[in-house]
Amino acid sequence: MQNNRQNNSCQNGKINSFTQVNQMQKQPNKFRFGGEDVRVVNSMIDIIYPPVPFPSNKIYKALGEVKIREMVDHHHQLLLNTKVGKLFPANEEALKMAIDKSADFFVEALGGDDVFTSAHGEPHLRMRHFKIPIDESDREIWLAMYKKTLKEISFPEEHLEEFWNWIEPLSIRMINRRTNMDEIKRHHWHEIKSGFVSA
Amino acid sequence: MQNNRQNNSCQNGKINSFTQVNQMQKQPNKFRFGGEDVRVVNSMIDIIYPPVPFPSNKIYKALGEVKIREMVDHHHQLLLNTKVGKLFPANEEALKMAIDKSADFFVEALGGDDVFTSAHGEPHLRMRHFKIPIDESDREIWLAMYKKTLKEISFPEEHLEEFWNWIEPLSIRMINRRTNMDEIKRHHWHEIKSGFVSA
Repeated sequence: MQNNRQNNSCQNGKINSFTQVNQMQKQPNKFRFGGEDVRVVNSMIDIIYPPVPFPSNKIYKALGEVKIREMVDHHHQLLLNTKVGKLFPANEEALKMAIDKSADFFVEALGGDDVFTSAHGEPHLRMRHFKIPIDESDREIWLAMYKKTLKEISFPEEHLEEFWNWIEPLSIRMINRRTNMDEIKRHHWHEIKSGFVSA
Repeated sequence: MQNNRQNNSCQNGKINSFTQVNQMQKQPNKFRFGGEDVRVVNSMIDIIYPPVPFPSNKIYKALGEVKIREMVDHHHQLLLNTKVGKLFPANEEALKMAIDKSADFFVEALGGDDVFTSAHGEPHLRMRHFKIPIDESDREIWLAMYKKTLKEISFPEEHLEEFWNWIEPLSIRMINRRTNMDEIKRHHWHEIKSGFVSA
C-alpha cells in the first residue's frame, strides 16, 4: 500500500528541484508509462528562498526618514512606467496609500520609528503580496528599478552593499506566480557593484 | 562580507517552510528591525511536492482507451461548471482540443498507445500548465470533480486507489500561483475511500 505521507526528502536524499530535472540530459531509458508496476517519481522542491540579511541601523542613521521616503517614492515612480506599474492601484489615492505603506516599511525596517507596525501590524510581506500575482520577471523589474533609483538618488556608496544584500534576496520571497522552471536569477553584489562605482 | 551563494539549507539544517514560520507562536523577543548588526532570516522553502506514483497498466487493461477518454470528458464537463472552467479556452474548438489533449495524456500515462507523445511531445505537465494561473483552490476543485467523476462513471473499485494515489499528488505539481502560507491539503486514499465504498 502506497504510503502517501508527505515525504521529507531532505532526510532520504531523494529530492530534486524542478530546475535540476529540467536541465538533466535526456536519459537513454525514457520514463515509460504504464509498466507492470507503479513507478514513483521522487519528491520535488521548487524555489529555495535564500537567507535574507536584514540591515543594521547604519543606513537609517545615514539617510533619515525623509530621504528614505523620497527613495521609496522615486522607486515607485520608475516602477509605474513598467509592466509592474499595472500591479498597483489605478486610483490615485489608493496608489499614494500603497506607496506610503511601502515607505513606512522601509523606514521601520532600516531602523526608524515603528511607523509601519503601529499603523499596519506585522510586516508579513509575502502574505501581504499574495493578492497580487507577482512572477519572476516582476521581481527582475522591481530590482532593476531599485538599482536605477540608488544611482539616481546618489545613495551613500558605503552602504550600498548592505542595502542591496537585503533587497535582492528579500524580493525573491514576494514571487507567488511561477512561470518557468528556471532557478530564480541572483544578482549578487560582487557581480553588480561595478555598475555603482564612482568615476 | 555576506556570502550570498544560494544556501542549500538541507545541508545545515537551517531551513524553514513558510507554513512552519506562519504557525509559530509569537516569540517573546520579536524580530527587531535596524539593530546594531545585520540580522539574517534563514532560508525558506515553500512546497515540497510529494512523490508521484505513476500507475501500472492495470487500469488501462481494465478500461481501455474509449472509457478513459469518456472519463476525461466527463471530468471536464464537471469542471466547466466551476471556476476552473474559466481557465479553459472559451472557443468551442479550442476547448475540444484541450480536452482531447488531456485525454491523450491519460490514455498514454495509463499504459495505452503513445497517443500523447507522438502528437504533442514530452508531457512536461507543469511546464505546459505555466501559462494558466493555477492556485491551491483550483487544484481542490479539479480533484473534487475527479472524485465525483470516478463515482458517476463507476470506475472499477479495485483500481480506484492506484488511480487516486497518482492524480492526488500529481495535481499538486500544477499549482503555480500561491495565495496563502498553508501547506497544500492532502487527500490521502485512506481518508477519502469511505466515499467510494459500495453499499
